[in-house]
Amino acid sequence: MTSSFRRILLATDFGDGIYVGQMRARLDELLPGVPVVDLVHDLPPFRADLAAYLLPALVRDMPHGTLYICVVDPGVGGERDGLLVHAQDSWFIGPDNGLFAPLVRSASGAKAARIGWRPQAMSASFHGRDWFVPVAARWSAGADLGLTPVDAADLVGSDWPTELPAVLYVDRFGNLMTGLQAADRPRTGSLLAGARTLPYARTFCEVAPGNGFWYENALGLVEIAINQGPADRALGLSPGDPVGPFLTPD
Amino acid sequence: MTSSFRRILLATDFGDGIYVGQMRARLDELLPGVPVVDLVHDLPPFRADLAAYLLPALVRDMPHGTLYICVVDPGVGGERDGLLVHAQDSWFIGPDNGLFAPLVRSASGAKAARIGWRPQAMSASFHGRDWFVPVAARWSAGADLGLTPVDAADLVGSDWPTELPAVLYVDRFGNLMTGLQAADRPRTGSLLAGARTLPYARTFCEVAPGNGFWYENALGLVEIAINQGPADRALGLSPGDPVGPFLTPD
Amino acid sequence: MTSSFRRILLATDFGDGIYVGQMRARLDELLPGVPVVDLVHDLPPFRADLAAYLLPALVRDMPHGTLYICVVDPGVGGERDGLLVHAQDSWFIGPDNGLFAPLVRSASGAKAARIGWRPQAMSASFHGRDWFVPVAARWSAGADLGLTPVDAADLVGSDWPTELPAVLYVDRFGNLMTGLQAADRPRTGSLLAGARTLPYARTFCEVAPGNGFWYENALGLVEIAINQGPADRALGLSPGDPVGPFLTPD
Repeated sequence: MTSSFRRILLATDFGDGIYVGQMRARLDELLPGVPVVDLVHDLPPFRADLAAYLLPALVRDMPHGTLYICVVDPGVGGERDGLLVHAQDSWFIGPDNGLFAPLVRSASGAKAARIGWRPQAMSASFHGRDWFVPVAARWSAGADLGLTPVDAADLVGSDWPTELPAVLYVDRFGNLMTGLQAADRPRTGSLLAGARTLPYARTFCEVAPGNGFWYENALGLVEIAINQGPADRALGLSPGDPVGPFLTPD
Repeated sequence: MTSSFRRILLATDFGDGIYVGQMRARLDELLPGVPVVDLVHDLPPFRADLAAYLLPALVRDMPHGTLYICVVDPGVGGERDGLLVHAQDSWFIGPDNGLFAPLVRSASGAKAARIGWRPQAMSASFHGRDWFVPVAARWSAGADLGLTPVDAADLVGSDWPTELPAVLYVDRFGNLMTGLQAADRPRTGSLLAGARTLPYARTFCEVAPGNGFWYENALGLVEIAINQGPADRALGLSPGDPVGPFLTPD
Repeated sequence: MTSSFRRILLATDFGDGIYVGQMRARLDELLPGVPVVDLVHDLPPFRADLAAYLLPALVRDMPHGTLYICVVDPGVGGERDGLLVHAQDSWFIGPDNGLFAPLVRSASGAKAARIGWRPQAMSASFHGRDWFVPVAARWSAGADLGLTPVDAADLVGSDWPTELPAVLYVDRFGNLMTGLQAADRPRTGSLLAGARTLPYARTFCEVAPGNGFWYENALGLVEIAINQGPADRALGLSPGDPVGPFLTPD
C-alpha cells in the first residue's frame, strides 16, 4: 500500500463537541492544505458493531482517493490494535474492533494491516487526535508505520454476518437506516418493523403524509420511513433494535 | 446569468448527520479548492414555507459572489422542478417549492430559471448530493444546464404574503426569529406572542434576566427573546406557530 | 504584539445553528484562504464563568500560531470591552467578561489589551460576526485596533479562584469535565460527585461497563465518567453543578 489521498473524511461517534475540533486542528497542523470533510459524527455512541455495517454504504458513492479516519472506539486505551485498510480505492485508519470487518469483506481486493507505530506520548482516551491523526500524517509523508499485514479472517468481526437486520442509524427526520442491502429485495416484499408491516415505495412523495414504508435509500440500504413524520418515534425503534423479517409474497 | 462565484454556502434542514458530509465530499470531488461554508443545517424539517422567509434575512449581510445550495425539500424525487436564481449579486440552487419565492420578490432585478439538466443516474431521495451539487459544478464550468427563464409570478410561492407573522426558527438559546421585518416597526410598539405582550428592547443586556422582549436581530427580523432564558419554552412557541399582532400605541 | 497566525479556531456557545455559518462566511470574505476550524460551539450557554476554565485546557495541546475567536458573551451589546490576548504562542479575541482570566493567569508571559477600534456599523447582538471577525482581519493586515494594554489584575475575573470544583462541560457520551487539574491529584484519591464517591481509573476500558470513576482526560482535567454509560444522567449533574471535595487517603 502506498499513500496518495486527496482528502480526509472523518467518521466518528464524537457528536458536535470538542473532539472533532481538536482532531481538525491537529490535522491542520500536521497536514496543512489537505481538505478535511466531516462525513459523520453522530454515529450511535460506542456501537462499532452498527457503524461497521453503515460504513461500506456511506463510502459507496464517495470519491476515490480518500483517507478515512474512523473512530467508534469504546476500547480506546486498551489492548485493541489500530488498522490501516485499503478498500474501494481509498484508505481507512481506525481501531480493530469490527468497525472495518464488513467493509473488508464486501470490497474485492481489500487489504488490512496492523499499525505498529505509536507516538511517544499520547492520552489514554483520545487516540483519534493523538494516534490516528499522526498516523495519517506519517502515512502521507511515507514514514514508517510498522505495518503488519493481517488476513481478513483475523480481523475482529470477521465472523459477523453479511447483513445486519437491525437499525444502524437514525437521521434527523427520524428515518431508520437498516443493515439490509436494498438491491436484492423484491419491491413486492414488505418489512416487519416495530409492530407494523411496511410496504415498499420508491420515495417519500409517493406515499401520503403519515404513512410508513421501506425504500432503497441513497446509500443502497433498506430504510424505514414515514412521509414527513418521525419513523423512529412512531415505531418505537432505536439504533441496535432488530427489524424484520423481510416478507416476500408467494 | 454567468457564473463567477467565490464560495459556496449550504443551507439545509439536514441536521448534523451524514447528508451534509456526503454533499461536501462530492463538492470536494467536483469543485476542489472552492471554499464551502455550512451556513445553516438545522432549518425546521420539511418547512420550506418557513425557510423561505428566513433566507433573504440570512443572506442580507453575507458576502456577494456566493453560490448557495439550499435544500428544504419534502417533495424530493417527485415532480417539483429545480431552480437557479440570481439575486443580491449571488446565485441560489434548490427546489421550486416556495423556498426562493420571498427572496426573488424582495430582491430587485432577481432572475430565476428552471434547470433542465439532470444527471444520468441519481437517487430518488438525495438530490442535494446527486443533482444540485453536480449542477453547481456544471454551472462553475460553464456547461449546459438546460436553463429556462421563469417569471417570478410563476414560481411556487409567488402568491405567498410579503411577511409571515410566525416563528421561522429557534436558535440554541431559545430565541424565536419571526417572519416580520424589524426596520419598519416603531420601537414603541409591542408584540403579542404566546400569552404575553412583549415590549421592545435594543438588545439582551437592556432587560433584566428572565424578562421577555422583542428586538431587531442581526438579520433584520423581529426576534422574540428572554434575557438569559429560553423564550421558546417560556412562551410555548415552536417553528410555524403564529405570532402577533404587532400593537402600535395610538 | 504582532500577528502571524496560521489558522483560526472558533470557540463559542452558539450551537450548530446560523451564527457559526455567518461568522465563517464573513471570515471567508475578509480572510480568504486562512484555515478555520470549529473547535467547539456547544459550550454551556451564557456561562463565560465555566468556559473560562475549560479554555486553557482546550488550548493546551493545540498547535501554536493560532488565532482563537471566543464568544460566550451574555453581555453583548452592553458596556463590556473586547480583548486581544497573547498567551501560549497564540492569540485570542473575545469579550472581557472573565472568559480569558484563567488563561492569562495560567500562561507565563501572557499579555492582554483592550480593543478600541469598532466598525462603523454593527448589530447589537452579534459581535462575533460584526466586531470580532473584522478585528481578526485588521489584526492580520496590521491595521490599527486602538489597543490599550491592560494588566492581568484589571481583567474581569482576575479575582476568580485558580481551579473551579464544578462541572464545566458535558460531552456527547455524558462524561463530565471539571475545573480541577488532574496532574496534581494522587491516583489513590477519590472524588465526591452527585451522591457517589468515585475512585480513579486510567481510562474507560479499565472499569466494568456501568461503573463510575474519575480520570485524567485528554485535556489534563479531572473528568467524571461511567464506562459506556452517561455519567451526567446517572449522577444528576449538569454544567455549573459543584463537585468534590477530592478525598485523599491518610
